[in-house]
Amino acid sequence: MPRNHPKNLTGSNRRTFLKAAAAGSAAAVLSPSALAAQQNGGRALGKGVSGYGERSSFEIATRRVRGARYEQAAGSLTPLQDLEGTITPSALHFERHHAGIPDIDPAEHRLLIDGLVDRPLVFSVEELRRLPAVTRVYFVECSGNGRVKWSPADPETDAQAAFGMTSCSEWTGVPVSVLLREAGVQVEASWLVAEGADASRMTRSVPLDKALDDVLVAYGQNGEALRPAQGYPLRLLIPGWEGNICIKWLRRLQIVDTAYQTREETSKYTDLMPDGTARQFTFAMDAKSVITRPSGGQRLETPGFYQISGLAWSGRGRVQQVEVTTDGGATWSEAQLDGPVLPLSHTRFRFDWQWDGTATTLASRCIDETGDVQPTRAALIEVRGLRSSYHNNAIQGWRIGTAGQVENVDV
Amino acid sequence: MPRNHPKNLTGSNRRTFLKAAAAGSAAAVLSPSALAAQQNGGRALGKGVSGYGERSSFEIATRRVRGARYEQAAGSLTPLQDLEGTITPSALHFERHHAGIPDIDPAEHRLLIDGLVDRPLVFSVEELRRLPAVTRVYFVECSGNGRVKWSPADPETDAQAAFGMTSCSEWTGVPVSVLLREAGVQVEASWLVAEGADASRMTRSVPLDKALDDVLVAYGQNGEALRPAQGYPLRLLIPGWEGNICIKWLRRLQIVDTAYQTREETSKYTDLMPDGTARQFTFAMDAKSVITRPSGGQRLETPGFYQISGLAWSGRGRVQQVEVTTDGGATWSEAQLDGPVLPLSHTRFRFDWQWDGTATTLASRCIDETGDVQPTRAALIEVRGLRSSYHNNAIQGWRIGTAGQVENVDV
Repeated sequence: MPRNHPKNLTGSNRRTFLKAAAAGSAAAVLSPSALAAQQNGGRALGKGVSGYGERSSFEIATRRVRGARYEQAAGSLTPLQDLEGTITPSALHFERHHAGIPDIDPAEHRLLIDGLVDRPLVFSVEELRRLPAVTRVYFVECSGNGRVKWSPADPETDAQAAFGMTSCSEWTGVPVSVLLREAGVQVEASWLVAEGADASRMTRSVPLDKALDDVLVAYGQNGEALRPAQGYPLRLLIPGWEGNICIKWLRRLQIVDTAYQTREETSKYTDLMPDGTARQFTFAMDAKSVITRPSGGQRLETPGFYQISGLAWSGRGRVQQVEVTTDGGATWSEAQLDGPVLPLSHTRFRFDWQWDGTATTLASRCIDETGDVQPTRAALIEVRGLRSSYHNNAIQGWRIGTAGQVENVDV
Repeated sequence: MPRNHPKNLTGSNRRTFLKAAAAGSAAAVLSPSALAAQQNGGRALGKGVSGYGERSSFEIATRRVRGARYEQAAGSLTPLQDLEGTITPSALHFERHHAGIPDIDPAEHRLLIDGLVDRPLVFSVEELRRLPAVTRVYFVECSGNGRVKWSPADPETDAQAAFGMTSCSEWTGVPVSVLLREAGVQVEASWLVAEGADASRMTRSVPLDKALDDVLVAYGQNGEALRPAQGYPLRLLIPGWEGNICIKWLRRLQIVDTAYQTREETSKYTDLMPDGTARQFTFAMDAKSVITRPSGGQRLETPGFYQISGLAWSGRGRVQQVEVTTDGGATWSEAQLDGPVLPLSHTRFRFDWQWDGTATTLASRCIDETGDVQPTRAALIEVRGLRSSYHNNAIQGWRIGTAGQVENVDV
């Protein structure tokens, strides 16, 4: 018996993306005689089950190593243009090491909590895993992400090169507030100093208010233990703040009464302003977005329908809105956000677009729940000048050529 | 200047987990002289950056292969007891293959949509990736998960053996409703038949209403392409329904007017009831939960504080509540749920517990938003009898011995 299909799929008033019978269609209409051929295919048995799976040999996306004299003091960049959704595969989480990845036996590792506390404490990893924990999705982003945008756009720069120092994971760990409740914080305490067990002894000062708010001593990433490149077995995960302060291979939280002015918060990770002063402790990452598809180095094969897709995030809270332009900034329209939109997390946005085959420029801008709006490069430089290295959140443009090629461009 | 810390960490009224100075503490209190020793450690440079990262050599959790004569027609089980959070690492997603994993070149693969449609269509993977897509977190569970619970509890059975045929991923793909809008569904259509490209030609019938509701043709899993064991390059992802119907290596959606009564919905994947009739098309997975820590095979090293943690899920919607007993079922208390609680997704629950060193039994029960309550094994058998193989969602108990050993037990 004929039925009423719930989404009105029958009849002539349905929306179509493909214009399937027309030229430039994404999908082919098959003749009935062609259907049988489509059903051929091998019947050989495939591979068996395995203990720890691997990706297809046809999938070759990799982190690109950022030029450095020593591979132990280098970075590697997440291939954003090749990824789907919001979770970054742990194997592709960006890296930035200052003295390489230490090879730590978790049974031997300890976390020391001392300084202005009633009871100094030391925890093994197993002892931490007995304590109250939470699981949360957060991005981690190097404050140097987007650094290339201080220079005029190089057409060859792709999403990975421009923005590949951000990644997003599901983290599991013990809130610092739980640990400090056990240690007993003394009244004069106002900062903690976190120290890593790598050879560089990476050390950063963290305001105690933030530490007690939402900071985790993380031991889990995307369902399994932290990856070695992300601080195995313990990392200080400071949601929304620059990656450098999220101390990897965490071995000590010292409670103190002042910031320690370490190398990483004086000569590095500060922002030189036009007047010659330096901004210090610019912790929170600004509202940012990037279209990952189509993006630099990709090619639109034919005119027709494309869903534009990308990532947006902010270190100050939830992404409120993402706007997309397909005409080089003349007009902006609101993109859809894949839910749930989580605070301090990558958010995937999507925007339906018909490409007519003419040259144009695509771009996106993020607006977060605090009202922070991602600026143009020109507007950012107006305020910040050109002496900075970190914290560039300028809008990213992609120029579409008539042959479908996609190149980096300033908007 | 003394400050008022926001969470009242100072003073004597704070809650503590550790009773650090007492016997049985999880964490040691260090004397000041011991602190310096804690700060030693190597300064050798570590490993450099890499293109595609690996886990630590100290992490050895693997899928366990379920006994089978042929490795191509076998299963492997997710090690739930070793995992954190809710996302299952793709490398540890459970497997169930009927003719092995085909090695598919995505450039050659096609999806055919035909049958009762106005326009048969065929898509390449790249063509699908141009279309409107969504990203959602969903579990996939074999309907045979929990099968061991039809038999009285074997003390040796652990969480992986009992419940390791469920995994949870962030999936990205094109809604079937988008594809069928393009093809034009004819009025007499009521089912679709999905077919895989593996040598077994796995084929299942799907009611069209469900297909148009929330079903995806998925190509992304946890940020990257589907893993080969999960259907690379395309899988029909049917949220909340038994894994077998989520056809892997998807190559055809045929729109039809009746269920096709394939082998996998007649001789297999049906439930023999006490009266000799068989339930067919029992698609939705029932409300279920399992404590993963502590769980079978683990050991509590000392009495004291432990946060009990586990996973709950339901194929009918959101987890509404999880209750935990620490006294063998005499009393039940509500567990905390890690948010956001997503529909048709693993939900992590947590429950704070002080173990006094005496023998006891832990268990959890899930209540979903439809009111479905996870039953005891006895209550389930009362209704279902003992002739079934699939769809066992009985409560899982873990017996804690006085030496801290954890063993499987019926509750």
